[in-house]
Amino acid sequence: MSELLTRGVAKTLPKGLGEKKLKSGDKLRVYWGIDPTGTKMHIGHTIPMRKLQQFADAGHKAILVIGSFTAMLGDPSDKDSMRKPLTRKEVEANFASYKKQAEKVLDFSKVEVVYNHEWLEKLGYEEIMQHTSLFTVQQMEQRDAFEKRLKAGSPLGIHELLYPMMVGYDSVHLDIDCEIGGTDQEFNMLAGRTMQKALGKREKFVLATPLINGIDGRLMSKTYDNCVYLDDEPSDMFGKVMRINDDLMETYFECCTGIPMEEVAEILKGEPRGAKIRLARELVTMYHSKKDADSAEMHYNEAASGDVPSDTPEITVKPGTLLIDVLTEHKLVASKSEARRMIEQGGIKKDAHVIDSIEATADAGAYKIGKRKFVKITT
Amino acid sequence: MSELLTRGVAKTLPKGLGEKKLKSGDKLRVYWGIDPTGTKMHIGHTIPMRKLQQFADAGHKAILVIGSFTAMLGDPSDKDSMRKPLTRKEVEANFASYKKQAEKVLDFSKVEVVYNHEWLEKLGYEEIMQHTSLFTVQQMEQRDAFEKRLKAGSPLGIHELLYPMMVGYDSVHLDIDCEIGGTDQEFNMLAGRTMQKALGKREKFVLATPLINGIDGRLMSKTYDNCVYLDDEPSDMFGKVMRINDDLMETYFECCTGIPMEEVAEILKGEPRGAKIRLARELVTMYHSKKDADSAEMHYNEAASGDVPSDTPEITVKPGTLLIDVLTEHKLVASKSEARRMIEQGGIKKDAHVIDSIEATADAGAYKIGKRKFVKITT
Repeated sequence: MSELLTRGVAKTLPKGLGEKKLKSGDKLRVYWGIDPTGTKMHIGHTIPMRKLQQFADAGHKAILVIGSFTAMLGDPSDKDSMRKPLTRKEVEANFASYKKQAEKVLDFSKVEVVYNHEWLEKLGYEEIMQHTSLFTVQQMEQRDAFEKRLKAGSPLGIHELLYPMMVGYDSVHLDIDCEIGGTDQEFNMLAGRTMQKALGKREKFVLATPLINGIDGRLMSKTYDNCVYLDDEPSDMFGKVMRINDDLMETYFECCTGIPMEEVAEILKGEPRGAKIRLARELVTMYHSKKDADSAEMHYNEAASGDVPSDTPEITVKPGTLLIDVLTEHKLVASKSEARRMIEQGGIKKDAHVIDSIEATADAGAYKIGKRKFVKITT
Repeated sequence: MSELLTRGVAKTLPKGLGEKKLKSGDKLRVYWGIDPTGTKMHIGHTIPMRKLQQFADAGHKAILVIGSFTAMLGDPSDKDSMRKPLTRKEVEANFASYKKQAEKVLDFSKVEVVYNHEWLEKLGYEEIMQHTSLFTVQQMEQRDAFEKRLKAGSPLGIHELLYPMMVGYDSVHLDIDCEIGGTDQEFNMLAGRTMQKALGKREKFVLATPLINGIDGRLMSKTYDNCVYLDDEPSDMFGKVMRINDDLMETYFECCTGIPMEEVAEILKGEPRGAKIRLARELVTMYHSKKDADSAEMHYNEAASGDVPSDTPEITVKPGTLLIDVLTEHKLVASKSEARRMIEQGGIKKDAHVIDSIEATADAGAYKIGKRKFVKITT
């Protein structure tokens, strides 16, 4: 079973069941579910996705469940993301965009795609009373997110208790052997396991994949704007990976690349910058190409050394135009006030000299804006 | 509005709304819901039923909701009655029998009968998530029955939390002005009020009717075998009413009869036995006839004075048969051991002489068994 149950895996539950199922030689039914609520995928998403593809490659039945029904209602307890329920149309548009990105990881000739509205919208009070009778209020209150809210005295809606049973029914309907999902989904995934058992279906095991941290060291999340996105431009992706904390490298190598773990161990024995360059090259190669990795690395090195990179864009301006206006107009800074602040902090250089006045004009020369942006100005 | 909101009413909620609605002169939509889970109606059931008929008589729209859907699922938190879910067929059979009994109170030409499966079986997760989002876990935990169970550490199923929203939807669908129900239904009735408000329907008021105690002083309930049933034989009904505690009489008069309250006050000023006879006569007249009330009263008086009533059954036995065997065989006692115990306690008399041996033979004569049973034996 090679690394199926170990690499890029936080834990499997219950202990031993996954191993037993794999040893049996049976073709397993394995799924990963996504909520098609956003349109951009980051490398955190690739961890369970890569795992699903590994099961497909090993000859198992791999299923991707699009949470078309659940997304229309929204996970009410997912307060972080402040989701509003989506329409069917939005769900479909989101998934079209997701699929384009996911194709870099998933081979859709081997992975079946299904939509959970197909079975969830058919359930009525009769089934829902049956499913909810399998869980007690006390069990639900032990769920981390619920426990915190109750302790804090914040209101917890009854509908929030139903969510685990709603997504848990996906497992029942698909009669699954294994569900893959992030560790934040452990509670919901186990609810599905309980339901399968109670309703006479297969015994499922849960494969929880780790959540990874982003370039600022916090949990990778759109909310924090700290993600490495699959469709980041090569130079951007390369630069972002170079900024991650050294202690995240092993997780990135293990979970997000296919480099053999022995080789990873060797790489990590070297100095961190070299290891990180290897990681950045690998990811850019995976999501773009080796050629893109070469030029992203070159660009990165030039920028880091202070040299003006060979692919620096050129712009022509009227003599006497204020530098601040030029930078703003060409979106090299976010706003005039950012430009002023950068100048005040010595963050803008012309031909290696710090610009020291916010009233400087945009004279001809090579400018470095912040750490990595360059522009050549001609007049 | 006469006594609509006061007589046979434990409380109305919220304060003042019922009065306001009645004063408006509008035709109100009023309902009472029953769970067609048993087949025998007792006079406790007539309290809300009489109230519904009073609204109908006052020109309002009166609706009787048969809990055909809710009964098929069962109120999971109603642990007392240990109900098991009913089939549609059982529900229909039960209601047919209910209706026959209810006709003594309800004029079905003025009361519309509806079945709640007609709307509840159409609801799916989408509606149920919306309805459950109107209530918090904390609110549900304040419900008496739930609070007790949680404090006692007994498991409380999630499905039990859904029941109030399920029956509450009856109010929403029917867009009701007033729901009538026993005080034990207050929580569920108010849940329906919350739902109506949140879903843009009328503002409903709740009219809670008192629960009454049975002939042993405990809550009238089939479980305790202490009920006065609508289809009790006249003598049985009369005798049962004569056995109620004196302090229950006022409630019975107020809630279960139509005798004007001024007259009730006069009756209760008299000695208790006379008042109770008046009550017993009234109830037997309501559910049987005046003639039945006359003969039931006569029978009761004869039995009470020790005379052998004129309608005492006769049985013929072989000379020398043991009395105990005769009493048991003709079901005049529950068992031989009961017969023995009664003899030992001096509870069986023959022609006014106490039988003092358990080995007495059933000689010809008039026997009194316990306080009210008689039999004539010939050999």
